[in-house]
Formats: sequence, structure tokens, C-alpha cells
Amino acid sequence: MYLKQVLYPTKLFSLIFEMATNITWHDGNVSKEERATLLGQKGLTIWFTGLSASGKSTLATALEQTLLHAKISSYRLDGDNIRFGLNKNLGFGPDDRTENIRRIAEVAKLFADSTSIALTAFISPYRADRDAARKLHQDAGIPFIEVYADAPLDVVESRDPKGLYKKAKAGEIKEFTGISAPYEEPLTPEVHIRTDQLSIEEGVQKIVEYLVAQGLVDQSKLQ
Amino acid sequence: MYLKQVLYPTKLFSLIFEMATNITWHDGNVSKEERATLLGQKGLTIWFTGLSASGKSTLATALEQTLLHAKISSYRLDGDNIRFGLNKNLGFGPDDRTENIRRIAEVAKLFADSTSIALTAFISPYRADRDAARKLHQDAGIPFIEVYADAPLDVVESRDPKGLYKKAKAGEIKEFTGISAPYEEPLTPEVHIRTDQLSIEEGVQKIVEYLVAQGLVDQSKLQ
Repeated sequence: MYLKQVLYPTKLFSLIFEMATNITWHDGNVSKEERATLLGQKGLTIWFTGLSASGKSTLATALEQTLLHAKISSYRLDGDNIRFGLNKNLGFGPDDRTENIRRIAEVAKLFADSTSIALTAFISPYRADRDAARKLHQDAGIPFIEVYADAPLDVVESRDPKGLYKKAKAGEIKEFTGISAPYEEPLTPEVHIRTDQLSIEEGVQKIVEYLVAQGLVDQSKLQ
Repeated sequence: MYLKQVLYPTKLFSLIFEMATNITWHDGNVSKEERATLLGQKGLTIWFTGLSASGKSTLATALEQTLLHAKISSYRLDGDNIRFGLNKNLGFGPDDRTENIRRIAEVAKLFADSTSIALTAFISPYRADRDAARKLHQDAGIPFIEVYADAPLDVVESRDPKGLYKKAKAGEIKEFTGISAPYEEPLTPEVHIRTDQLSIEEGVQKIVEYLVAQGLVDQSKLQ
């Protein structure tokens, strides 16, 4: 056996390597359960929806950081990394809006399938689009948590950090959700957060409590 | 101060919560460095290219499992999870092929940005498309490792696990890479693997050694 390895340098190399690096693999895909066990966490998608300036991104950002500090892999998809990247070839007409949400749902599903916690922060005003995103996850056995970042229109109009409501009311932006285009609020979101009544920390707490109660994140990691 | 918290139940609730769950966050996005430190790994994309049946998916599968067993988050994008999901609305004409690779590159970049190791296993026959994927990563400061799964045409034709070469030669599949459509081999791939000469383990080893030498994965995790 030893002689053979000397005669075949590649084999010897392989033997040395096996001592140094533990190459472990089997045919076929890694199952979801196997991946979750190896990485010590479960994948899921948390889908934030709400009017512009309702606090979706702020909540998602604070939740993402809280999870990362607990060593739980999490990633936020939002306008910055999607609209200027994957979906830069989409406009704002009805078909493109639906395709926008469809692609976001598919990418979130991939992240969740990788055992990350995908956080999506988009207005996603149409129930049908959000329900399609939910079905996509359900069909793959991946948890889908809809979080409604809810604040009255007069509140989000008064926040208006980018001056978008002002422009929409002046007719400078067409089909702006809440002003000149509909927002179909979630009927039974998993988590409903009145962002005009709760602090950011309280909102994050509400989501985390839901995740812990559902057995989706390990409470001990968050302490 | 204490009295104030008694008077305002929400504040008290918040205080109790802060003891139970460590909500840690700051304004703005999590930086790449912060994320890498918190999760203890660096993100990158490993782009496998090669003829059909050249061993791209097999190598990517074995590498993914090896990384996962080392507790390194890694995720493989391939035909199964992309062509039937995100890219199910794309065909096989030239424009759709380019859009297919563009979207894969964007998604791989998101995974790498999340500190995962993204593995893509697609023929990706055109240099221009692969170079665009590389540039996308380089512009974002994300490492992009091109791995050429290389085997001579007569070898991959003899493997032909799905009978595709046979069909292509019979004219039943049009524009099949290597038969009736070009494959532009990488000129300077980071890793070149002759899959007809190396075992799967040896191929994975070669990639892992490259990653360790470049400081992209922590060798101690792999032992």
C-alpha cells in the first residue's frame, strides 16, 4: 500500500491532503435538514411591506444587525441592492412591478434555502404579488413571515424623508403608492407593527418574539 | 428614572426586553468588514465554467459540502434552482443567454456580499458574459474566482449522462455548446482543473488550496 503511493505521486498527494483537509461529500444535493444542522440555523424569509416611509427598511436594518450580532446569518434585499443590480432592467409599469417582486421572491427563497434569514424591504403594494411570493416559499417548505410596517398616511407624509410624497401630490411622480396608486394592506400578516406607536427596538422585539415562539430562531443565541 | 418607567409601561417592557434580547444596531447599512467579522468568514464567488458534462456541478457540489462541513456558509446556484426559478422566463436565444448569466452574476454577488461563498455551475460559454460577471464583482470589491472544469470533447461526449451530445449530434438540439455552438475557454482562470486527469477530491483540493493561499478561507476550519 505504501509502495503504491510512492509509485503514484498523485495518490500520495491525495493522502497527505486527506490528512490536512477533510473533504466530506456525497452524491446529490445537500438536503435542507443537513444544511440547517451543519450551519446551526434555519432559513426563512421575512417579507416587510408597507407604504413608502412606513419604516420597512429601518426595521429590516435593525433586525438584520440584531441577528448578525447573534451570529445568525441574515441578509436584507432592498431597493439599493436590487433596483440597481438584478432588477436594473425593469421599469415601474404594472408588468415590471410584478416581475420586480417575482424576482425578489425568488432570490429571497434562494437565501432562505441556503439557511440564511432573508429580509425583503419593498413597498410590494399588491396582495396578489405578495401572495405569489408566499406560495413560492410554501411550495418549497420554507417559512414566509409577512411583516406589515403600518403607519397612517398622514404620518408617513409628514416623515417623507426623500420628499417623494410632496412630489407625488404635485403630480411630479405618477402612480405613487398611497397617493395615486393603491396600497393593499395585508389582511393577516404574521406580524403587524404600528410604526407610529412602537419604537424601532419594540418593533424588532415583536418580530424576534414571533420568530422565537415559532421555533424559527434559537432564543439562546439572542441573549 | 425608574418611576418614569413604571409610569410608561412600554418603556418598562422595553427595559425588560433589553435584558432578554440584545438588540444591537446603528443607522445605515452593515459594512462588508463588520459582517465578515460578525459571521467569521469572507464572501466570494466561485464561478465554474466548462462544457456540459465537464464536471462543473460535481466539483461545485463536493466543494459546497466540504465548506458546509467546515461550518463555512456556501450555496450553489445551478440549473436546478435558477432555470426553474428566477430565470424560468428566459429562453435559450443569445439575448436570453446573456440575461441568464447576468442575473446569475447579480445573485452570486448578493450571496457573496452576505459573506456566503457563492458557487455557480453553468456552462457560461462566452468570455464576454463571464468577464461581465467578473467586473460586477470587482467593482464591488468582491473576490471572483473562475474555475475552468476542463475535459476534452471526446471525454465529455463519452460521459454524456443525459444523452445531450447524442441528441445535439443528431440535430435534435440546436446550438449545443461544443457541437453546434462555440465554447470560449477561459484564458487565465484562477483555477484550471483537468477533470479527466484529477479525481473529484483532487479537484476540490486544488480549489481549496487556492482559496487558502489567497487568504479567502481559514485553513484551520478545514482540518
